[in-house]
Amino acid sequence: MKALQYREIGAAPEVVEVPTPEPRPGEVLLKVTAAGVCHSDIAVMSWPAEGFPYKLPLTLGHEGAGTVAALGDGVAGVEIGEPVAVYGPWGCGRCIKCAAGAENYCERAAELGINPPGLGAPGAIAEYLVVDDARHLVPLGGLDPVQTVPLTDAGLTPYHAVKRSLPKLGPGSTAVVIGTGGLGHVAVQLLRALTAAKVVALDVTEEKLDLARKVGAHEAVLSDAEAAGRVRELTGGIGAQAVFDFVGAGPTVATAGACAAVEADVTIVGIGGGTLPVGFGALPFEVSVKAPYWGTREELIEVFDLARDGFIDVHVETFSLDEAPEAYERLHAGRINGRAVILPNG
Amino acid sequence: MKALQYREIGAAPEVVEVPTPEPRPGEVLLKVTAAGVCHSDIAVMSWPAEGFPYKLPLTLGHEGAGTVAALGDGVAGVEIGEPVAVYGPWGCGRCIKCAAGAENYCERAAELGINPPGLGAPGAIAEYLVVDDARHLVPLGGLDPVQTVPLTDAGLTPYHAVKRSLPKLGPGSTAVVIGTGGLGHVAVQLLRALTAAKVVALDVTEEKLDLARKVGAHEAVLSDAEAAGRVRELTGGIGAQAVFDFVGAGPTVATAGACAAVEADVTIVGIGGGTLPVGFGALPFEVSVKAPYWGTREELIEVFDLARDGFIDVHVETFSLDEAPEAYERLHAGRINGRAVILPNG
Amino acid sequence: MKALQYREIGAAPEVVEVPTPEPRPGEVLLKVTAAGVCHSDIAVMSWPAEGFPYKLPLTLGHEGAGTVAALGDGVAGVEIGEPVAVYGPWGCGRCIKCAAGAENYCERAAELGINPPGLGAPGAIAEYLVVDDARHLVPLGGLDPVQTVPLTDAGLTPYHAVKRSLPKLGPGSTAVVIGTGGLGHVAVQLLRALTAAKVVALDVTEEKLDLARKVGAHEAVLSDAEAAGRVRELTGGIGAQAVFDFVGAGPTVATAGACAAVEADVTIVGIGGGTLPVGFGALPFEVSVKAPYWGTREELIEVFDLARDGFIDVHVETFSLDEAPEAYERLHAGRINGRAVILPNG
Amino acid sequence: MKALQYREIGAAPEVVEVPTPEPRPGEVLLKVTAAGVCHSDIAVMSWPAEGFPYKLPLTLGHEGAGTVAALGDGVAGVEIGEPVAVYGPWGCGRCIKCAAGAENYCERAAELGINPPGLGAPGAIAEYLVVDDARHLVPLGGLDPVQTVPLTDAGLTPYHAVKRSLPKLGPGSTAVVIGTGGLGHVAVQLLRALTAAKVVALDVTEEKLDLARKVGAHEAVLSDAEAAGRVRELTGGIGAQAVFDFVGAGPTVATAGACAAVEADVTIVGIGGGTLPVGFGALPFEVSVKAPYWGTREELIEVFDLARDGFIDVHVETFSLDEAPEAYERLHAGRINGRAVILPNG
Repeated sequence: MKALQYREIGAAPEVVEVPTPEPRPGEVLLKVTAAGVCHSDIAVMSWPAEGFPYKLPLTLGHEGAGTVAALGDGVAGVEIGEPVAVYGPWGCGRCIKCAAGAENYCERAAELGINPPGLGAPGAIAEYLVVDDARHLVPLGGLDPVQTVPLTDAGLTPYHAVKRSLPKLGPGSTAVVIGTGGLGHVAVQLLRALTAAKVVALDVTEEKLDLARKVGAHEAVLSDAEAAGRVRELTGGIGAQAVFDFVGAGPTVATAGACAAVEADVTIVGIGGGTLPVGFGALPFEVSVKAPYWGTREELIEVFDLARDGFIDVHVETFSLDEAPEAYERLHAGRINGRAVILPNG
Repeated sequence: MKALQYREIGAAPEVVEVPTPEPRPGEVLLKVTAAGVCHSDIAVMSWPAEGFPYKLPLTLGHEGAGTVAALGDGVAGVEIGEPVAVYGPWGCGRCIKCAAGAENYCERAAELGINPPGLGAPGAIAEYLVVDDARHLVPLGGLDPVQTVPLTDAGLTPYHAVKRSLPKLGPGSTAVVIGTGGLGHVAVQLLRALTAAKVVALDVTEEKLDLARKVGAHEAVLSDAEAAGRVRELTGGIGAQAVFDFVGAGPTVATAGACAAVEADVTIVGIGGGTLPVGFGALPFEVSVKAPYWGTREELIEVFDLARDGFIDVHVETFSLDEAPEAYERLHAGRINGRAVILPNG
Repeated sequence: MKALQYREIGAAPEVVEVPTPEPRPGEVLLKVTAAGVCHSDIAVMSWPAEGFPYKLPLTLGHEGAGTVAALGDGVAGVEIGEPVAVYGPWGCGRCIKCAAGAENYCERAAELGINPPGLGAPGAIAEYLVVDDARHLVPLGGLDPVQTVPLTDAGLTPYHAVKRSLPKLGPGSTAVVIGTGGLGHVAVQLLRALTAAKVVALDVTEEKLDLARKVGAHEAVLSDAEAAGRVRELTGGIGAQAVFDFVGAGPTVATAGACAAVEADVTIVGIGGGTLPVGFGALPFEVSVKAPYWGTREELIEVFDLARDGFIDVHVETFSLDEAPEAYERLHAGRINGRAVILPNG
Repeated sequence: MKALQYREIGAAPEVVEVPTPEPRPGEVLLKVTAAGVCHSDIAVMSWPAEGFPYKLPLTLGHEGAGTVAALGDGVAGVEIGEPVAVYGPWGCGRCIKCAAGAENYCERAAELGINPPGLGAPGAIAEYLVVDDARHLVPLGGLDPVQTVPLTDAGLTPYHAVKRSLPKLGPGSTAVVIGTGGLGHVAVQLLRALTAAKVVALDVTEEKLDLARKVGAHEAVLSDAEAAGRVRELTGGIGAQAVFDFVGAGPTVATAGACAAVEADVTIVGIGGGTLPVGFGALPFEVSVKAPYWGTREELIEVFDLARDGFIDVHVETFSLDEAPEAYERLHAGRINGRAVILPNG
């Protein structure tokens, strides 16, 4: 079969022919219908050889959807032909975090050498994908795989962040979303669906602010040195009860802190390398700052429920498997609107 | 191998020779070290033929511990010889309840014909037990299997009940435990370990009240028509913030309701058939009444953590496999102190 | 001044002249702009002389709004002329419930003889109203008093009920509202504002179901013996995660229980005298049943925030103070659409 | 009457004669039985004239207890002679934070010029103290005022911090307390009373570690560059689920971060000026870092409930009012064991 692989440190990914895998006992083989292209792959491909954590060649793609093509021995409760998406942050399945479905925080994954598809294990940008256990399959239940596949990361990650802050986002509250790209424009929609909060979006271009308004932001504010002051004005001086930073660079985390109300949550999702210093007097009282990672199995099911009920609309550009290298190039160049999705069998 | 089976409606269970099972792909074979004997088995054996939900013969035992004897194909992360206990309320592993570890509330178990061991599937009172998936194994991690096996039900069930009421059991609160037998005497210990609440135990004999005091109850009150009045006295007229009824008969649920403070939780765990009527004016404002079932995978890990830290001490009487029928007879006659445990390979 | 008083057991309320009150130290005098008429007043006026809890004559009206007319000595932070609404369930202000703002559950109100206005203390259906403490005033902040005054009970009561069930009402969930009158039609709007749940309304006439649809119910179902089955169909057999019964009669609480999913909340708000029996096997696993009363100070502020943000629209019919007796007659006869509001100075 | 006043920037506090205050309407006059001496007063007295936030002279003391000596007009529900303690972080009583009892986070205190006693308003280190509103009095209910007065800050502040982290501190968890002085040695006791967590105390001298062990710490570890590694060892490499830093200096907040497990809470209570940088990759996934301030009214009642049930033992050294300047000197010199308490009428 064909697969998109990162084969050599620093090289561009390329489409190559590899053996079609077969599922071992307990595993499930998917014929891939759609696979998402993510900024974090580009980050991975920028890492130096020294300390590079995965074996090469690596088939890319940690957002995957497909139809069940074959079942390994002992797999029950899954039907051949069933359309599914893949929960990506695989864990051991047995530790206390995994027992509660938070495989993203598995206590034993590192020790057991368990990696997500496309981030260590062979990924979804290929004609076929092996999933290690049926519990990592979530039924699409009528959802379109192309529209839905980005939700396995670009939906699940902001959903996890937003869900943990729901108790702060009661009536009269304000939520700020910094960076309204792939994840951020989903976050705006999640906040509108799940809360009665006022949603204020921050980004650096009018085009992105327009998208934010279109997907439901009540206010869209240029993300510059004045932005936090503008948020404070919009909130009668109180500040925002929750701030989600999908950029995570130095200036954006500073803005995030400067927007925050007493007892607010500041969630840094973006991997831009910025940090926000927390200590007595450094921020308003009891502002809680954290940087989560991906989401839980239950949360992915909930994201799909939201999509099924019409609350999430992801803008998608599609590419064939042969065009996948180009998709990465365009993403790198900032020339993808919304999310790029590869159709390996399309 | 030898197994204790319920073979015919209304008959006593008997020890018989059956083929030793082999694990299919994905399954794990345990050599059983300890298996608990539970009142609910006696309830099952009292049900009439019509509508009896399980196929006969049925190997009994839904509380099981053992050492891993063989692995089906595809099982990873489990070692031959590893000492484990079994999480009993098996579910599909994929629905939204199972994804969060609440397999006790699996949405698809009935439809898929999935049953707990001993309650449909072959149980633990046998030399060997097949467990359907490695996720249902919890490492004993140094705990003694004989002392620990009752915790898989008689520990997990009260823990689930208590955990859901922890927010009500802050400083100055009172918890009432009705029925201080197998589950109730564990509940008293859990409440002492996890809260600063005053614990009031109710039971019908001085002997049981002594046990309640010994395991940590601050007050032990005879469970009669005056009991609720006594609880109200002990709480300055306010009532208890949480009441756990491990009997669940008509008089005990009435007492439970009569003990409750405004905004209290009343949890009916016992299967005694009693019901408590809830409506405006029927109980103090916002008393919340519910009847849960067993517990989650995460909670079982937490119960074992508590045991490992010395917070739970279960009184156990042991029997060989050949003596298992006698254990049931004695339990039925009310002549077991604490919990009966069968040692099938002992 | 003129006031509407209930003067004699069994008699209709009448408009009488009474001395205009003056605020004592710590009290605030309001010139009443709007006062709500509520079914529970009719219930009060149906009670027999024996055991009647309040002194007569009693000025009616537990929903009140007004402008600050005079301040008792020692009142700070309130301005003459400020438009406010009154938080009704007055408590002692110092017990642990009051300290958290839950004066509706004050531990000392009965002992200290503290009553809500219109339910013991002189009520709001009068030209002037004395409020015992400035903490019971919530600024209207631009809200129209006539539209807003019903929210102090008909908004706060369903809000309190809905808020406690928000954790159950995640994506993919279903909420059922039984009885879509004064409180119920607000509950539908609150559920739409605060959750992504599917909202199913039940009532007995097509006219009321039309109102339910108009205020946002996704489904409106005739409330009869088939209703619970219909809810189960609409939820793929799972049932509803939260059921709010604003009628509380025998048949409606039975329907509420029959609609409920595993782990659902059933909240009985209506004072129709029905009760739902809870015990093991009586309802799906861990269905939690409760009957709350009114709401907290924080919650009333949140309800006003929701109104300010356009999430709640109450249908109101207005009456002069002289017409107040007629308003009660029409309410009793079922001839009020939405909520009747008296304008004592209108 | 006599009072301890800070009269001039940079000068030592001195005992002076001032007019005995009288309560205005709504206020309560206390005859002070005990008043706590706190490090934060020393911080205040180190601030420069420029920007100094309070008017001088300032009577010190934000921890106060007394008996009710006189009631202003309009005060109800308080008895002359009643022994009470004072909730210190006074707020407006009406904003959404105050409505829920979180006056420590009042939205309007600054704007309205409301200050805590001893931190702007006249404080408790005097023969008499005026309290602005009866809601700020908590009945001692049999507690000894001398032992109890430190709990109004040194108990309430760690209680607030610990309470917010209780959901993280389930079975098998570890809590780390950095700095086991006035607040920290109470925190250890609170953690033991309210959780089943393993409690690890860190401090810089063997004497303080001994105190930590004596009040219940399971482990006491020297607070140096190796401390975080030691915590990780004690937790099997996982780290602590909650870390409370009562020092808040640069090295301690760094240790706090280095101790933290995935999803842990790090709470910086100490005002030592250190900050911990949070961002993706800077700490384990989803470690939540915050710096709270004091606590709520409900929480103070809960702290007193814990004291009444024997869970908290504060080491106290007493001084007469004339010795109060010496108490501050000794505190500054690090020569107070536990908490210094002034007895102004002793």
